Amino acid sequence: MQTKNHITDTICALATPSGIGAIAVIRLSGPEAITICNSCFFGKDLTQVDTHTIHFGTVRDGDRIVDEVLVSVFRDKKSFTGENAVEISTHGSPYIQQQVLQLLLKNGAKSAGQGEFTLRAFLNGKLDLSQAEAVADVIASNSEASLQLAMQQMRGGFSSEIQKLREELIHFASLIELELDFGEEDVEFANRDDLKQLVVKLQTKLIHLINSFNLGNVIKNGVPVAIVGEPNVGKSTLLNALLNEERAIVSDIAGTTRDTIEDEIVISGISFRFIDTAGLRDTKDAIESMGIKKSFEKIDEASVVLLLVDASTISENQLMADVKNIEDRIEGKNKRLVVIANKVDKANQAVISDKFNRVKHVLFVSAKDKLNIEAIKEQLFNYVNSGALNQNDVIVTNARHYEALTQANEFLTKVLDGLDINITGDFLAMDIRQSLHYLGLITGDISTDDLLDNIFSKFCIGK
Amino acid sequence: MQTKNHITDTICALATPSGIGAIAVIRLSGPEAITICNSCFFGKDLTQVDTHTIHFGTVRDGDRIVDEVLVSVFRDKKSFTGENAVEISTHGSPYIQQQVLQLLLKNGAKSAGQGEFTLRAFLNGKLDLSQAEAVADVIASNSEASLQLAMQQMRGGFSSEIQKLREELIHFASLIELELDFGEEDVEFANRDDLKQLVVKLQTKLIHLINSFNLGNVIKNGVPVAIVGEPNVGKSTLLNALLNEERAIVSDIAGTTRDTIEDEIVISGISFRFIDTAGLRDTKDAIESMGIKKSFEKIDEASVVLLLVDASTISENQLMADVKNIEDRIEGKNKRLVVIANKVDKANQAVISDKFNRVKHVLFVSAKDKLNIEAIKEQLFNYVNSGALNQNDVIVTNARHYEALTQANEFLTKVLDGLDINITGDFLAMDIRQSLHYLGLITGDISTDDLLDNIFSKFCIGK
Repeated sequence: MQTKNHITDTICALATPSGIGAIAVIRLSGPEAITICNSCFFGKDLTQVDTHTIHFGTVRDGDRIVDEVLVSVFRDKKSFTGENAVEISTHGSPYIQQQVLQLLLKNGAKSAGQGEFTLRAFLNGKLDLSQAEAVADVIASNSEASLQLAMQQMRGGFSSEIQKLREELIHFASLIELELDFGEEDVEFANRDDLKQLVVKLQTKLIHLINSFNLGNVIKNGVPVAIVGEPNVGKSTLLNALLNEERAIVSDIAGTTRDTIEDEIVISGISFRFIDTAGLRDTKDAIESMGIKKSFEKIDEASVVLLLVDASTISENQLMADVKNIEDRIEGKNKRLVVIANKVDKANQAVISDKFNRVKHVLFVSAKDKLNIEAIKEQLFNYVNSGALNQNDVIVTNARHYEALTQANEFLTKVLDGLDINITGDFLAMDIRQSLHYLGLITGDISTDDLLDNIFSKFCIGK
Repeated sequence: MQTKNHITDTICALATPSGIGAIAVIRLSGPEAITICNSCFFGKDLTQVDTHTIHFGTVRDGDRIVDEVLVSVFRDKKSFTGENAVEISTHGSPYIQQQVLQLLLKNGAKSAGQGEFTLRAFLNGKLDLSQAEAVADVIASNSEASLQLAMQQMRGGFSSEIQKLREELIHFASLIELELDFGEEDVEFANRDDLKQLVVKLQTKLIHLINSFNLGNVIKNGVPVAIVGEPNVGKSTLLNALLNEERAIVSDIAGTTRDTIEDEIVISGISFRFIDTAGLRDTKDAIESMGIKKSFEKIDEASVVLLLVDASTISENQLMADVKNIEDRIEGKNKRLVVIANKVDKANQAVISDKFNRVKHVLFVSAKDKLNIEAIKEQLFNYVNSGALNQNDVIVTNARHYEALTQANEFLTKVLDGLDINITGDFLAMDIRQSLHYLGLITGDISTDDLLDNIFSKFCIGK
């Protein structure tokens, strides 16, 4: 891993998905990006053109014309990476892509590693680390909610919050460290009450961010939903009713493929994943060897549990036992149970009402007739919506950030404990510095090669 | 299908391969391309910027930020399509691609049909029809030879040849039609001897082009090669020796996938396809129920036939019988037979030489020991190379062009026949006009909606 001061090489990679398309884009970045491209480009002298301009010409290997291309030139600080950059738009043949890349390598470029363009943007100060990380999330986003979270983070929403907290804390750390310079003199530049107040304020914010992670994570990866119930209650019919309706509303624009994940539905921009449902639909409600108690594994993984029962046959005792079993299991775990009373078409209305009288959150549906399926979707959406999503809050979606925030918070607790027992300034300063360290890891004010390697190795090549 | 005078709408499509990548490019073309893009782009007023410039900003749907993008603006005659065009470079998430496309549709663009961008380039006079057709060939090219043929055609090599022939002929047609105006006066503006000379010259060129089609077609699609032979002569071992070596030299550049076709090798930029070889490798030389005579189907499809024999066991009589069988079958068909004497390691050198004494084109190899495999590749390459490829000739690769050239040529023959029997000018003019018609179909000087529909429906969307 190289650092800002050592970027002397120029990298290249295919930036568009591999395969055949109308066009493909090959990216170059580095001090020699323009000159390397210029050495195999005919049509104009690219070293003389303005930044952010486009030029038509041919890529040639000696006399051999490899392709007719458009070349976009970006200079220095004005490019995404903060260094000279070129994008070559070729015809979308994999053969041509390979030929152009080989030519660039021959002319002195090197193949880019995963995320190396974004890494350079970070090293050159165009993005902080959490913004750089969000670039990968933007690309991976597959629902409106996950896109908006990633976009907010990429545009700096999350970092600026952290940055502000960190600066206030640095101020106190400096004051306390100043006290240490005076050694035995027992001066107090940093008012301990003010410090305590700040730390409490910081902790409130940190804990808020930490708590948002669970929600942020499900939004990013899809809210896990489990459908549990006895055999023959209609689990597969319900699942199909939920999924098929969704499939029908996925719009088809020619030329794009919506990455549809089997067993995922998107409701108002939030995606919900049905856990372990493959078997559900394959078996077509065949007698399963496991009852509700055996479904605990699925329940543990889920954020929302749909308990599906046959409203026409279940006894009130059985119903209440099932509900209690699940409620016991999910207690205190921020999960939600919704009881779905299926097959209402088969049973007497009054009898059913009576049976389900004592159950909270019950929906009466007929999966077969697609009756009231919309209400289930509303319940799913409400689970997320009643969280922090709509309050325009900053939400943590990244496990690394969650980890760093948790660590920072722990050291703040130590600071508070220290203040309570009038610990000496040097120990206070040490805990504050630790806390600052972890906050700095998020924005990249503090970074190590290992950390950067780890982060950018999750990127695709060309980004 | 619309014509030049009726392009009032603006089309949009994804131009890069679908799927996840670092970036994706969405294309707009049409009179409103810039204004439609501008209506959802924030960062700069795109209606005020110069052609061939790039602008950073956000795509927004109302207040909602869909993505941070780079927008390339191309004005009027200076774009690929010859009309206002915009390329939006987004983050490479399929979700974002879909959102941006939906937004453009909402703002008045329509989804582009297959090849509609290139069709517009043709209708707006940026490309002639054969050049437009070559765009699809450039994208589909998967070897150096197929790329060079397509590139030559796209850059106008083929059309300019046709165009020149056509103009000379038009000159004569006009003179003859002028004669007709003078009715009974029996004038001859068009010298019949000069016309005859021109037609003969034209036919020579046309026949040359027509004859190049067979070669052009195999270069474009890969030269079909058949390996035939008795069971247990080592067909699968030979095929693997040929293919494996190739696999090893295919260079791997991270981020690109070379579209490897099973059972295809590329030698000096020309691809060779082994016909019907799947079974060969699956059966691992298992006893096959069919002998050489049953291989005629494969031989009929192939341009090169490799007759593989076991040099250590075959009798001279059997060998000569097999060779004669195949030679009879391929006679006059521009195919080549190469006899491969396999398992030379197992037999006495002198005995073998003796046996194969009367066979032309024989190669002594050991497929097992990978001995002399290179010589087989040389033979394959020579088959193509001894054709027109290296003579810098214009080569016809397109079946539609082949058809039109053949028709044009037939009518020229009628013209010659007419001249021989001193046919009247009106009949001569008719045959010349027919010939001109077919030549015009190639360049698109003459085109119909059906023809254009048919051509561009083979393109991908976004091109």
